[in-house]
Order: sequence, then C-alpha cells, then structure tokens
Amino acid sequence: MRKRVLLSENDLPDRWYNIIPDLPAPLPGPLNPATLEPLKPQDLAELLPQKIIEHEFTRERWVDIPEEVREVYKIWRPSPLVRASQLERSLDTPARIYFKYEGVSPSGSHKPNTAVVQAYYAAQEGVRRLTTETGAGQWGSALSFAGSLFGLEVNVYMVRASFEQKPYRKSLMQSWGAQVFASPTSRTEAGRAILTRDPESSGSIGIAISEAVEDALSRDDTKFALGSIMNNVLLHQSVIGLEAKKQMEIMGDYPDAVIACVGGGSNFAGLTYPFLQDRLNGDRPHTRFIAAEPEACPTLTRGKLAYDFADTAGLTPPLYMHTLGHDFIPGSIHAGGLRYHGDAPSLCLLKEHGLIEARAFPQTDVFEAAVRFARSEGFVIAPESAHGLQAAVIEALAAREAGEQRVILFNISGHGNFDLAAFDAFLAGALENPTVTDEQIVTSLSNLPSPAAAV
Amino acid sequence: MRKRVLLSENDLPDRWYNIIPDLPAPLPGPLNPATLEPLKPQDLAELLPQKIIEHEFTRERWVDIPEEVREVYKIWRPSPLVRASQLERSLDTPARIYFKYEGVSPSGSHKPNTAVVQAYYAAQEGVRRLTTETGAGQWGSALSFAGSLFGLEVNVYMVRASFEQKPYRKSLMQSWGAQVFASPTSRTEAGRAILTRDPESSGSIGIAISEAVEDALSRDDTKFALGSIMNNVLLHQSVIGLEAKKQMEIMGDYPDAVIACVGGGSNFAGLTYPFLQDRLNGDRPHTRFIAAEPEACPTLTRGKLAYDFADTAGLTPPLYMHTLGHDFIPGSIHAGGLRYHGDAPSLCLLKEHGLIEARAFPQTDVFEAAVRFARSEGFVIAPESAHGLQAAVIEALAAREAGEQRVILFNISGHGNFDLAAFDAFLAGALENPTVTDEQIVTSLSNLPSPAAAV
Repeated sequence: MRKRVLLSENDLPDRWYNIIPDLPAPLPGPLNPATLEPLKPQDLAELLPQKIIEHEFTRERWVDIPEEVREVYKIWRPSPLVRASQLERSLDTPARIYFKYEGVSPSGSHKPNTAVVQAYYAAQEGVRRLTTETGAGQWGSALSFAGSLFGLEVNVYMVRASFEQKPYRKSLMQSWGAQVFASPTSRTEAGRAILTRDPESSGSIGIAISEAVEDALSRDDTKFALGSIMNNVLLHQSVIGLEAKKQMEIMGDYPDAVIACVGGGSNFAGLTYPFLQDRLNGDRPHTRFIAAEPEACPTLTRGKLAYDFADTAGLTPPLYMHTLGHDFIPGSIHAGGLRYHGDAPSLCLLKEHGLIEARAFPQTDVFEAAVRFARSEGFVIAPESAHGLQAAVIEALAAREAGEQRVILFNISGHGNFDLAAFDAFLAGALENPTVTDEQIVTSLSNLPSPAAAV
Repeated sequence: MRKRVLLSENDLPDRWYNIIPDLPAPLPGPLNPATLEPLKPQDLAELLPQKIIEHEFTRERWVDIPEEVREVYKIWRPSPLVRASQLERSLDTPARIYFKYEGVSPSGSHKPNTAVVQAYYAAQEGVRRLTTETGAGQWGSALSFAGSLFGLEVNVYMVRASFEQKPYRKSLMQSWGAQVFASPTSRTEAGRAILTRDPESSGSIGIAISEAVEDALSRDDTKFALGSIMNNVLLHQSVIGLEAKKQMEIMGDYPDAVIACVGGGSNFAGLTYPFLQDRLNGDRPHTRFIAAEPEACPTLTRGKLAYDFADTAGLTPPLYMHTLGHDFIPGSIHAGGLRYHGDAPSLCLLKEHGLIEARAFPQTDVFEAAVRFARSEGFVIAPESAHGLQAAVIEALAAREAGEQRVILFNISGHGNFDLAAFDAFLAGALENPTVTDEQIVTSLSNLPSPAAAV
C-alpha cells in the first residue's frame, strides 16, 4: 500500500491560488481604523511592504511565487502527504484518511509559508527590521527563521503567559537571532497603558499585535508582519492545498471532506481553498469543508459577524469577520494558536454561505485524539492541529456507522515537540475543559468599533 | 539549483548492508561476560529476540528488510538529502556540502531505524515487554514509538540526570505509552548497589544498561533492546547510507569526505558503511571518512583498543573496542548521546586500519557551528549532530584554503527541539568545555574485565 507521497522540487507550485475572485459574493473590505471609512491600500504603506499590500488587495486568481521564495521553500517543501492507515485500523473504519504534514519545516509548522514571503519582500524593499506578535510561539519562530535568511532584524512581542510557560520557543527564536520581548512591555504606549491598569498582565495576542504595530509605525526602517487572518497570508498558504491536490491525484483519491483547525484561518485556508475552488466552480459540488475550533474560543460557532479590530488597542484596520470581540480573553487551553477572537474574512464569508461547516471541541477530546494518533501514526502533533484530527476522527467514525468508504483529508499544521507539558497534563488527568458563557460573549461584543459599520 | 532529493517509497532499500564480510580483517567477537570465553549466539537467547541474534552474528553481505518493517519505515523514510547551499555561501567555500536529514522521524532522530526492527521481531516471537536504557532520551523515545506500533510494553531506564533535565523527553515517551524510570532505581540489584554507595547518584548510560539487562533477564516475557554499538544495530542503520548513495547519484556527485558524529557509532556507520564498501572494494579508493566526537568523551581519539563491558555492572558481553573504561564518567556536556565510554567494534577496526579518521571538538565550537547552520540552512539540530557539522565546516574551510571543489556529505542524526536549554546557555556565553586528563583515562582503564583477553 502506498503510505506517503513526496513530490519532487519540480512539482513545487510556481503560483499561489487566490480565492477572492471565486468567492460567492464580494468580500467586505477592511476599514481605516481612525475614520472607519473603507481602507485604501496606501493607508497600509507605513505598516507593510508594498508588495504585501498588493497581495492583500489583488483580485488576480493566480499570483507568481518569486524564484527566491521557491528556493527557500525547497528547504522543506513540498511537504509530505500521508495515508493514515494505522489510524484507520485503530478506528476500524472503512474511510481512507490522509493528512498533509506541515511539521517538517524548520520552525515546525506551516507558518514559514508566509513568513518567508513577508521577509523576502521586506528585504527587497530595503526594510531592515520586522516586528511581530506571537502567542504560542509558532508564528514568532517562523518569522525569526525567515528573517535570519534575509538578514533582517526581527523583534517579537510574545504574549507574557507563553513567554513564561514556553521558554524553549523563546530560545528557538533567539537561536535564529531574533529579539523576544514579554508583552505587555514598557517599550510601547499600548503596553504601558495595559501595565498601568494591570502590572501583572499576562498579555494576549491582541495586546501583542498592538505593541508590534506601534513599534513598526514609530520607525522608518521597520515594517510589521502578521501570521494569519489577512488575505495575503491566506494567499501564501495556498501552497499547502496546491501540493495536496497533486498528491491526492497520485494517490488516486479525491477528498469527500477537507478538514483543518482554525485559529485565524491560515492553515485551514491553505489546505482547503484550492479544493474549495473545485466546489465553487461546480467541478466537485459535494465536497465538505470542516473547520475545527476549541470550545474555549468558539469564534466561528458562536461569534458575531461584524467589523472588529484585529488587535486589542484598535490600531489595526477593522475586518468584517466572526468575532468574539477584540477584548475577549479565552479560557486557558494549550492550543495557544487557536486563542484568537476573530477569523479571516474570506473564511467567514464562506461559512456564511454554507460552504464551510464549523465544529467546536472540548480540550480533553482533542488530546485523546492526539494520543491515539501518536500511538498509531507515530507523530506527536501540536494541540492546535489535533483539533482538525479530532474532526477527522469523528468523520471516520461516521463513515463506519454509515458503512461508507469516505475519503477524509486533514491538515497537521505543526508538530507537538514544544507542547509536551500539555500532553503530560492530559496523561495525568489534569486537563480542564474551559467553556464560554453567553454573557461573556455579549459583554465582549459590546465594545465593537462601530456597530453601524456592519455591512 | 537542486536543493533537495526526496526519493519515492519505491526507492526505499529492500535489503540492509552488512559490512562484516567486507572488513579488512576478521572482527574479534564478543566474550561471554561470566567466563570471558568467546560468546556463542545462544548465550544471548535470554536477552535478545532470536532474529536479532541472527542479525548480530550474520556474515551475509545483504539482509532482507521485512515488508512489515518497510511499511513502518514509510512513515518517514526515505529521509531527505539536502544541498547546504546557504551554508556554503556563509562559509564562502567552493566545496559542495550535502547533509542527510534524519530529524524527520516521529521521535526526531535516526534511532527508529533499528528500534522498529527490534520491536517487530520481538512481537513476532511473542515477547510482550521490552526494556532499554536511555541517556539523552533519543533512543528511549525511538523504542517507545516502535513499541507502541507493535503493541509492546516498553520500560525505559533513563539516566537520572537527563530524567530531571529533560522532562519533555520523558513526556514524549509516555505519550507513546512507555513507562520511564529514573536510573539508578531500586527496582534492580544493579541500581540498588549504586544507590547504597551513592544515594544521590545521577546515573550513567552504563548503569542504565545494567538495570535494563537485569530486568529483561529476570522475566520470561521480556527482552532487552540496545540502540547502538552492536552489529545488528549498525546493520539496520545502513538504510541511511543506502538511500544517501542513490540521492547523491541523482545529485550527480560522489562525496570526497563522509562525516558523522560518533557516540556508540550507529548513525556514523549508518551513513558511512555503504560508501565505505566502495572504498573497501577498490571502486573509490580516495574517499575519506571522518568520525566526530566531543573532547569531553574522546573514545576514538584517546581510548584504548581492548575488551570492555558495554555497561557499568559488567552484565553485558565484553566487546573489543576503543574504550575509556566502563567506569569512565565524562564531563557534563549537552550532547548526551555522545557521552559513552566505548564504540562499535567494526568502527574501531576500521579506525585501526586507517580507513576512518577521528576528530574531537570542544563544546563551544560545536554550538557555534550549530547556530551558523540554523541561521543559514534553517534547521536547529541536535548537539550530537552538530559535532559532524563542525567537522564538515572544517573540511569546507580547508577546501576554500586549497581552492578545491571538494564534495562533503555529513549526517544530521536528529533535530534539536529538545536541546534548546543548551542553545540558551551557549547564546548566554555560559557553556563550558570540559576536558579529560590522561590520569582520568589511566584510572578508568585500570578496571577492564581482563587485560589478558585482549586480542
């Protein structure tokens, strides 16, 4: 039996796929954070490299991947697609389960797929320094790696809770030469404002974004890099799904269900959008797309579709998205990359049109799936990715129930080598399942930038 | 430029290469630990699966890889071979540098190449439980992973110092269902004897082997598994070099120098022996083979060639090898996998015949190379593997000096995701370079099993 498909370098895509022109309705654009009027591309000029702004607003279906970026992709891409045959046996299911494995990149996740692009264009345009935020550390690691390849100084604002709980993620970034700050810091106004209210603040992704944006805006040699939710990020991540389509073809299968976890949406979009194109253009009208999120941060399943800021301080352009409110502080779960209040706008639009289903899972179910996976397929995967796995397991059990040979494809966005404290806690029976009350959501949604701005 | 060669599953070797019949002289065999007479295969029957004993003593040049083992290899094999083009640029060398990357396995190193075989045959023969030792944790992780695939209970005696310093390695093994004990334990006579003398003992690989062997011998349903130095382990690891030969051929190059680190010798032999075959049979008479070890544990560069035990308590068959004495306690370095007093006998014989060169490196030079590698090629590698990297860097600089386009191939036996505390210490300037005095070596060599038994 064919276990794994490794494409050669020649099969590495030379164009990214942009879903925007294929969406079933026009995508509401971002707003200017100061005026709440529609944002013009040039409003972002101080914040982002020009070419990234172009990628953010382009309506071209295909965008060329620069040769220099492809050269770097080749360090770990094309990534493997694997038949989860031992998992199938463990579940006694007639389903054929496949996973795309992004844990092979130097920083251990899918994040370098866009980090390399953002660092490359920044260096091309004479930028010397990049700032960014990181929660669990995956994105900060990816940008540190990418920055080191292009000679850029990388400054990472890392959520203090993670900075303290995951010292080795910080060490990893430093090994690539990055500077890492525990956010909130006293380096920025946004940080100082938080510290004044709460000197012991453990931070949040929203706060860290505010700090990184303020830092970038304050210096001419500096731009900001974001690891999810923006159109340009989703565009770059399409390399995952484009490879997976070729690999599924070699396997002689086409998925009935395509699945991934959703934090901001970049690994989900990366895998699914190239398959969604087939559904949108009518070639594959029955493929299902399933987004898996934590019960502790249920943006797609319980959030409101509205304009909201991407950060806590309101420095970033409001996006039209499913949001729990930019003040929302999710319960403490180990899948730090899924603890974000919003989602990518295109993903929200597709959900609204019934093209994407969303499911929320309690933490312990997710870890049970991850341990089953480790003991069948071998890989210990990130808690974030294990949400997608859990959705795949449920689909595989439904196939068994129905006696149908369904084909399931899911994404493993990263390995779990930096998450073993969480596995420890799970094996010791010490993991909890934080939930969210309706009241919490109502409260945090009361502070949206402008209810009137909703489309 | 071609950056990376990924072979397809069809190119996975179906036979292992055994160097024993090609050695330039007969290999002195192991001794019976009780009588110090030559060991008969059946003397090992209580300790090892029958098929592993067969592999240990076979003189066949090629040994078939069972289909079930190949199926498991396919989870991560063939592993990539990569042109280190950015490292070349960083060193401004005309040399072409390649590395084989074993960090893609589920446990993160080359160790599963043999762990899977040992677990498979054990399960085939009705064994229910495997015991083993682990130092830094790579081998214990590999056997835990392999055991979980074949339904075996795995009990790991982990050197107490590592057990305490690397809690996440322990968590990783537990995620695969293994039981992990801090050695010395009070579960065995060997452990209790050590604890009586030194209740605070931080353990050693030699002690942990004694405990795992004693445990295995005490139960009918249990066998022992060893991760290095034995012929059967080196045989299984040849899959690394067999793949690398095909990959180098696709690259259109043949190495002038083949390099790897040496702890017990298994990753070194794995990469080099298939190339050494070409030198031994006269096809490639000029290829050089370089073994890299730490100054803190200089077995090949300063050890004595003599019969010595593989473990501290003297329960294992003495092997004819370069040894620092089975009582030798190396200084504290982060490359835990290289802190072992002996080496595989075939490797020692090849060194004695001038076919392998050995070099010893101070710890800080090794980490400097590892950081340079992370910032050029992206991957943060294990401190053990960084010894091979450092030897490759020195060769590449010599090629620059000589103005020659030499071809250098080295092995990266594992990733460094569990070694970031060491990188932290290096970046903070806090790493030391422990050395060994001649007196220390003379003292620990005074306790060899039988000086008269030397060949």
